[in-house]
Amino acid sequence: MATFVEPRLPRGMRDIVPQKMILRRYVIGVIEQVFERFGFEPLQTPALELAQTLMGKYGPDAEKLMYAARHRDGKEDLALRYDLTVPLSRMVAMNPELVKPFKRYQIAPVWRAERPQKGRYREFYQCDADIVGTSSMLADAEIIAMIFTILRELGFQEFVTKLNNRKVLGALGEYAGVPPALLGGLSRALDKLDKIGREGVREELRKNEIPAESIEKILNLIALPVDDLATWREKFRAFPRGVEGINELEQVLQYTRAMGVNPARLQIDLTMVRGLDYYTGPIFETVVTEPKIGSLTGGGRYDGLIGLFSKNPLPVTGASVGIERIIDVMQELKMFPDNLGKTVTQVLVTVFDAERRAQSIALTMNLRAAGINAEMWYDDDGLGKQLKYAAARGIPYAVIIGPDEAASNVATLRDLATGEQQQIAQTDMAAVLQEKLRHL
Amino acid sequence: MATFVEPRLPRGMRDIVPQKMILRRYVIGVIEQVFERFGFEPLQTPALELAQTLMGKYGPDAEKLMYAARHRDGKEDLALRYDLTVPLSRMVAMNPELVKPFKRYQIAPVWRAERPQKGRYREFYQCDADIVGTSSMLADAEIIAMIFTILRELGFQEFVTKLNNRKVLGALGEYAGVPPALLGGLSRALDKLDKIGREGVREELRKNEIPAESIEKILNLIALPVDDLATWREKFRAFPRGVEGINELEQVLQYTRAMGVNPARLQIDLTMVRGLDYYTGPIFETVVTEPKIGSLTGGGRYDGLIGLFSKNPLPVTGASVGIERIIDVMQELKMFPDNLGKTVTQVLVTVFDAERRAQSIALTMNLRAAGINAEMWYDDDGLGKQLKYAAARGIPYAVIIGPDEAASNVATLRDLATGEQQQIAQTDMAAVLQEKLRHL
Repeated sequence: MATFVEPRLPRGMRDIVPQKMILRRYVIGVIEQVFERFGFEPLQTPALELAQTLMGKYGPDAEKLMYAARHRDGKEDLALRYDLTVPLSRMVAMNPELVKPFKRYQIAPVWRAERPQKGRYREFYQCDADIVGTSSMLADAEIIAMIFTILRELGFQEFVTKLNNRKVLGALGEYAGVPPALLGGLSRALDKLDKIGREGVREELRKNEIPAESIEKILNLIALPVDDLATWREKFRAFPRGVEGINELEQVLQYTRAMGVNPARLQIDLTMVRGLDYYTGPIFETVVTEPKIGSLTGGGRYDGLIGLFSKNPLPVTGASVGIERIIDVMQELKMFPDNLGKTVTQVLVTVFDAERRAQSIALTMNLRAAGINAEMWYDDDGLGKQLKYAAARGIPYAVIIGPDEAASNVATLRDLATGEQQQIAQTDMAAVLQEKLRHL
Repeated sequence: MATFVEPRLPRGMRDIVPQKMILRRYVIGVIEQVFERFGFEPLQTPALELAQTLMGKYGPDAEKLMYAARHRDGKEDLALRYDLTVPLSRMVAMNPELVKPFKRYQIAPVWRAERPQKGRYREFYQCDADIVGTSSMLADAEIIAMIFTILRELGFQEFVTKLNNRKVLGALGEYAGVPPALLGGLSRALDKLDKIGREGVREELRKNEIPAESIEKILNLIALPVDDLATWREKFRAFPRGVEGINELEQVLQYTRAMGVNPARLQIDLTMVRGLDYYTGPIFETVVTEPKIGSLTGGGRYDGLIGLFSKNPLPVTGASVGIERIIDVMQELKMFPDNLGKTVTQVLVTVFDAERRAQSIALTMNLRAAGINAEMWYDDDGLGKQLKYAAARGIPYAVIIGPDEAASNVATLRDLATGEQQQIAQTDMAAVLQEKLRHL
């Protein structure tokens, strides 16, 4: 075998140790359960896709971040998936027999070579739920209601969904007479309104070579009250796409209300853009306002994507839950339930000496058969070292079978938090521990 | 965006549809639970590793199968992991502060460009559990007992563990005077004994240029009864590595017995080799004999691997459960519990017409709040189409709110298996459904 190799991770990658995995699994568990309550089912697609499947779907900024992959037989240009949306579209196009609507979720890693920075990794999980095969705004509304349910069940108190529609963004350009080739620049400028203000947007539009006349029209338009949909509809009278977008916004509002979503929690934001090229209809981001931590999730409708892979295009809408950010925030704000613990192990069965080992082994197996997560000690070490191990790991209980205990088929059960000890018949140990663990 | 792209999967890759994901998740759930009962904790490592981390660890045959990956910044040679063992070793070497013994499991995809064939994919899951930091044979024995527990809880009836030790294999070569450079050829030939018989092995050894004299010695040795460890120990008297290997075999037998494993289920097989280069001590494969389906899992000790990444080497032993094969076999033999179902959705709430939609929406949200997995219908379609959808999906119940029902705040609950219907107050629907689902 090889000689010494420096153990290193690739740039921007990480290992997730058990203590953190416990938190991670909790969050994934809650999300999965809500997805299923809303009628979404699990789907798995491979991490590697043909490069041609992924390229040209996200826009040039995204493509720069993709990893290429290849087997030495050299027959296929592959790439690691950048999101779960394009793979879903490819999969649906390949399987026309799928019953529609097709509602799937997928919780899986994606890869993006973003500049490494705190809390940002190049492999991270996406949690996506999408509805394939309906143009009804009821589907878009349901996605928003589901996101609210997820955030609430994770313990977030207050959130607001910012809602826009790509058709409205498109109509804005038409209305202002922006040449189609410059629409990308218009979107990028508008998206910064919150950060750079009106004058910043004006400057940005100028830089993007948008005609002065168009700039004035746009700035006037976005000064209109966003909630006054009747006025917007009037403005867009000559631009059917814009009217359609406004009508869709209205329907989403109406349906979310029927689902019990408080209307105060839905804010129309006609300058919100969202990054990816493939959106075509409603787009949204849900922002947690209490605690104040910003956008944790977003999504939208992309009715054109499957059509790139199939002669039978199908409408799709969906959302992605920002699980990595959620885990970080929940940890920072200590939002995880107390009883999650540092370890899944519930008891360490110590080994007093070689002679007593067989009893410790038998008791360990006995506890496991009763469904208790039990470890035993492998080596010939003193009790002190074994108990220190249990404490370091955060294991709540230890069992000791010394010579006295062994002789009378009992064992000492020690609560490692309080130091309390009691002697229990070995045959009763599983039942006693089960009872104690129930109250932990 | 791009023009039409043929939707295709890379060679040897697949999508896993929801119906199959339900089975998959069941198997993973059972395995995870047993891993945790035995004191293993979840760990996650990235799919991509530096090429230098993976290369030179598995042997040349394995390396041919690896996928290379690269980001266009070109700064790092990366590869997709080929197993979960080398990444674990890299991780342990990088984190010397980890409390030992460190027991982790990982259930995650690995990538190998094997020749595509039925039931074999180039992305597949491995289910690994390993114990880092003890040389005790108690650890190796525990791994075997755990594998038995997993197979039994999945519903397999009878299995046997074939047990060998790499030290014995090494000593065989020493005993027969095989030059070190030819030991690989010796192992590969011995490994085929079951398939090609003694004469086949003789031929194979000759082809591998092993001296005639050595061949005779080897064939005589492997004709000895495998259970007669005293004789083997005597033969290896001058080869301490061989004696150590025989002693380890004996200890594993003794400890598994203390764990309640029937000794008849452990078969020493001194010609079993297992593919990977890194094993150093006990190696084993567990073979299911009833139903007769062969090896579903195996593992062994690899005390040298962490030493390639660290000046503080640590002993490790572990096993890999062949989850892909297990899922296939269980499906073929109809071993999955009946109540798993084709879908996780429990009820479809139909929409009678636009006027009645709000009630259907409200009831759907109500059922979800009660923990029931509920879908609603999005579009303006007739009831027939909606019920056909539910049947195609295998959803057990449908709810109908027509004009009569709507007027009196009731709903019709239809059992889609039997066609039975009953009217229920909308406010009671969640409770009634919960009760019915409990008995499904």
